[in-house]
Amino acid sequence: MTRQLYELVGADPEIRFSPYSWRARMALLHKGIDAESRPWRFIEKEALAFSGQDKVPVLVDGDAVVSDSWEIARYLERTYPQAPSLFGGPQGEAMARFISHWCDGVMLPGMITLLVHDIWRCLDPASQGYFRESREKRFGRPLEEIAAGREERVDGFRKALRPMRMVLNDYQYLAGASPAYADYAAFGGFMWARSISHFELLEPDDPIHGWRERMLDLYGGYARNSMRVAA
Amino acid sequence: MTRQLYELVGADPEIRFSPYSWRARMALLHKGIDAESRPWRFIEKEALAFSGQDKVPVLVDGDAVVSDSWEIARYLERTYPQAPSLFGGPQGEAMARFISHWCDGVMLPGMITLLVHDIWRCLDPASQGYFRESREKRFGRPLEEIAAGREERVDGFRKALRPMRMVLNDYQYLAGASPAYADYAAFGGFMWARSISHFELLEPDDPIHGWRERMLDLYGGYARNSMRVAA
Repeated sequence: MTRQLYELVGADPEIRFSPYSWRARMALLHKGIDAESRPWRFIEKEALAFSGQDKVPVLVDGDAVVSDSWEIARYLERTYPQAPSLFGGPQGEAMARFISHWCDGVMLPGMITLLVHDIWRCLDPASQGYFRESREKRFGRPLEEIAAGREERVDGFRKALRPMRMVLNDYQYLAGASPAYADYAAFGGFMWARSISHFELLEPDDPIHGWRERMLDLYGGYARNSMRVAA
Repeated sequence: MTRQLYELVGADPEIRFSPYSWRARMALLHKGIDAESRPWRFIEKEALAFSGQDKVPVLVDGDAVVSDSWEIARYLERTYPQAPSLFGGPQGEAMARFISHWCDGVMLPGMITLLVHDIWRCLDPASQGYFRESREKRFGRPLEEIAAGREERVDGFRKALRPMRMVLNDYQYLAGASPAYADYAAFGGFMWARSISHFELLEPDDPIHGWRERMLDLYGGYARNSMRVAA
């Protein structure tokens, strides 16, 4: 039985840049579960029709087809209870959900306005059209304008990460002494950024910077060794 | 042995309105531990000298003197491991810390600009002077100006609570099926507000509103039955 994880890629199929796909990938690594990567591009909606929806990540595990990074994490926790826990119990599951919602509502929206043009540059030409049109409609401005002035705006993004920074002043990981889903929820955002951009989101003395280094080293440096756009 | 919890009060010593004192009080209730309330007012710095610092809450438990709501929670978890867990394990401890930092950095600053003048009105005259001076210095404006226009600004406060709302769409409590420290961290803010103000922070159909009702009912309605300023 081959497991498969559908992951969003750029023009280069080795460049995987969905924060949600990265959450699922890290959750699989945490559980010690292999899954073949199936590259997927924005416009290939029909390739996901079997999953009953049109977004990645999608995990195919035998007969099970699971979409949505949060549902994938819950599926893995339920299906592989002997492997290391992603949540540390039912209390932890709800709290990890809080952190993933914080990432979705605060961290990722902050990142997109800094990186949107970098993403576009990494896409295949057909996806570029889709991406530009959908994002310019959402923001009401050209991609170039959304991303303008990011050197000045990045400080606001950094300030918004305060709850995360405060925890990482006292703990090695958002889940305490070792990483778990809360960390993958946040790290997905940084892997999205890292794959498609060399813009520095963090100052070197930020505790989040040190945490990101530790996360890059996990599982034999899996994330650190993943493909990144040329500088 | 009598345990004592020093809690911030207003002119009426029954009106307890520190979000941090409420966190500690709810943590004690969660553990099933009695502690006599010791009313404390802003200007009574010397009354806390025994604790080596000048802020409430302070818990006196036999020979132990513990200040800071987070340290009190960790002390209770360590000292009373047989009682219901506040964190649900070490992963949960770090994640509860994230949520308490989010409350400190997002929820409480949002509340203060809505409620600062209501707080001042509930204080004893001596504390009123201290409070006005210190808060006007912090904000650079008179209390009345900080609080102005709150009917229009409350919507921004509500929007900022999104991660909490999203979790409470799917779970009864921030810690899942039953309440724990993550809930008390957030509830402390709402008890602060409730004690000194009748300004409505939440819309009735907000999942956070329903959660607040459930929290008010915990432990025999302890919080619901606590003293509140006259409307």
